Amino acid sequence: MGTAVKGKAVIGQSGGPTPVINQSLAGVIEEARKNSPIASLWGALHGIKGMLEGDYVDLLGESPDRLRRVAETPGAALGSVRFKPKKKHVEQLFESFRKRDIRYFFYIGGNDSAETAHIVNQVAKDADYELRIFHIPKTVDNDLLENDHCPGYGSAARYVASAVMGNDLDCRALPGVKIDIIMGRHAGFLTAASVLGRTRPDDGPHLVYVPEKVFDTEQFKKDVAAVVSKLGRCFVAASEGVEDAEGNPIGAQEGVKDSHGNVQLSGSGALGDYLADLARDELGEKTRVRSDTYGYAQRSFPGFASPVDATEAREAGRWAVRYAMAGDIDGSVSIRRVSDSPYEVDYPLVELANVAAGTKKLPEDYIDPDGNNVLETYKDYALPFVGELPTAERLAMKRAE
Amino acid sequence: MGTAVKGKAVIGQSGGPTPVINQSLAGVIEEARKNSPIASLWGALHGIKGMLEGDYVDLLGESPDRLRRVAETPGAALGSVRFKPKKKHVEQLFESFRKRDIRYFFYIGGNDSAETAHIVNQVAKDADYELRIFHIPKTVDNDLLENDHCPGYGSAARYVASAVMGNDLDCRALPGVKIDIIMGRHAGFLTAASVLGRTRPDDGPHLVYVPEKVFDTEQFKKDVAAVVSKLGRCFVAASEGVEDAEGNPIGAQEGVKDSHGNVQLSGSGALGDYLADLARDELGEKTRVRSDTYGYAQRSFPGFASPVDATEAREAGRWAVRYAMAGDIDGSVSIRRVSDSPYEVDYPLVELANVAAGTKKLPEDYIDPDGNNVLETYKDYALPFVGELPTAERLAMKRAE
Repeated sequence: MGTAVKGKAVIGQSGGPTPVINQSLAGVIEEARKNSPIASLWGALHGIKGMLEGDYVDLLGESPDRLRRVAETPGAALGSVRFKPKKKHVEQLFESFRKRDIRYFFYIGGNDSAETAHIVNQVAKDADYELRIFHIPKTVDNDLLENDHCPGYGSAARYVASAVMGNDLDCRALPGVKIDIIMGRHAGFLTAASVLGRTRPDDGPHLVYVPEKVFDTEQFKKDVAAVVSKLGRCFVAASEGVEDAEGNPIGAQEGVKDSHGNVQLSGSGALGDYLADLARDELGEKTRVRSDTYGYAQRSFPGFASPVDATEAREAGRWAVRYAMAGDIDGSVSIRRVSDSPYEVDYPLVELANVAAGTKKLPEDYIDPDGNNVLETYKDYALPFVGELPTAERLAMKRAE
Repeated sequence: MGTAVKGKAVIGQSGGPTPVINQSLAGVIEEARKNSPIASLWGALHGIKGMLEGDYVDLLGESPDRLRRVAETPGAALGSVRFKPKKKHVEQLFESFRKRDIRYFFYIGGNDSAETAHIVNQVAKDADYELRIFHIPKTVDNDLLENDHCPGYGSAARYVASAVMGNDLDCRALPGVKIDIIMGRHAGFLTAASVLGRTRPDDGPHLVYVPEKVFDTEQFKKDVAAVVSKLGRCFVAASEGVEDAEGNPIGAQEGVKDSHGNVQLSGSGALGDYLADLARDELGEKTRVRSDTYGYAQRSFPGFASPVDATEAREAGRWAVRYAMAGDIDGSVSIRRVSDSPYEVDYPLVELANVAAGTKKLPEDYIDPDGNNVLETYKDYALPFVGELPTAERLAMKRAE
């Protein structure tokens, strides 16, 4: 620890955008304005790529009013990047920082970004150059270690929960089997959010499949048939990343192919189509079966962010600057739940290496032992930061004859 | 014309639900409560199906508070149906109405529903039985004749415009080609809504393809390449119903198949995948190309209805009852624009047969002569009933070096 050094600061955004990643950017800018050691704050266009190419914009000159509106805009205002730097890139980056007297490096992103920050950090330390490096968490997948939950997840979860509510109402109106595929290759958090709007015993989703559990196609058919036989319809939410016992993505082995003959999975409707075919096989062609694959709207739908998520993302940005000013040298700002009731979090600084080390899975406690549903206990975890959902009311349905 | 007869009224909902179809139901119930000739109002479960099976619920007993919440809930509260009745069904239906002394028949739906109402009407007239039949328009496709626009479209358009805004921001953050497929097999109205959030010259969608124009795959590739060369990225909005010069759905002829070997189009991601492959062919594998196929969220997303659309849907329901009470025998409630500024509509009663007769297309005036975009003039038409959209702000982007 030491007091704050005078110098330039740079900030970048990395990985898939979220509805609140610009809140974190705004938080850093706001807090940097208050702190004189930060002589200027440069935004790198498209993250590490902009840093390597010297592509920077001035951020301290942004008007507060514009910044408020930018903060409420989904997508990464500075541009984002998917790029894992190699050793030579990190050295280039460090040299460019040293040349420009850059002393602060803020990086908003997922665990890859935490790892990048961690590596840059090592190089700076080896060169005995004082560079303060702070990672600000962001991911709709909610899979960062050391965090109760991640900025971005609450808003994406609010979209997913709402979209599922609407789709379930549609499926009630025109009954049949509906299968909705939700983002999350390795962690089932976003798919779990599908249950947040479930308030009545016959509300969907009736079946929920996450990558944490082996997906068995024969069991799936039986599950769907059982729900249809009970309720006359069945709403299924499944993660794009569901796999069989051998770790193969579901649908791939059956040869669902695009027009080039390539096996396609995520980013296409193939998994949904495949599961729909399984349901048709089981229930016959007379059953109405439909599938939807939720796309990038999950991480980008505007005007629908969770207010709590927006506040937390903003705070995470502010805390990164506060830690830097307090003399911390490096770390990742995290979200820790301090109290459930009333809901309260704080933002401790944790080791970059710990966040970079891996990814978090949906805890077993939230998954039905049968592997085909998410339990109500998950709602206690998520609703406080997902916030209020639209309501869905039904008619009293008093029989007329 | 004659004064209102005493008797029972029935109401049903038909076809694909919308976010405001329950507003029309609530409008009918509210207005029926005020009018003593309507002794009781029965809701048929799943439209004509419930009427044929005598499956009714009492609606006048619904509490106003519950009804307010039902009105704001997407999906069809009574259940919907996709069922085109044959002559024998219509006769059965009429007999069941006569047996129960049903004198009013309100049917909320698209042009198929108007046609059903029209046929039932003929049978009643032939039998000299006074049955007052009113169709209340509803369709996210906006393709009903005799209407300036249709209840349901404004809310679906608001969802599409917003989803496109978010997706375009995502595509700006991680540049490449993004192709979003939007509902509309025969009419391009919903796809046209993709341009509503476009406010800056480089905002997407940069290319818009509707079923009203022949889709040429070679021209598509050139169009995309031209935009990428100018902007470094390209955002495409395309209707699920685009066709080639011979009227074949795009993608089908290239053998995009599901796991059963069946050619799949709508309801799958096949068209988006196919267009993405065309873009990759043209631009090379290094270009990031993604596609999304918007699903039933377009017609069911909760908590996001256009307030104007909600009001108009409610009014359309109220007017159906008012016309019935005023002594009109039959007709379809329509929306007519009386004034552009200030925006004002009224709800004239039009002939059932005229609404049943066909479907409306997106007017040529709104389509770029090159066939690859929707013109700004469309916004003047749609924005008044779509209502306010989320805002998207950018940083001032003052270069730092």
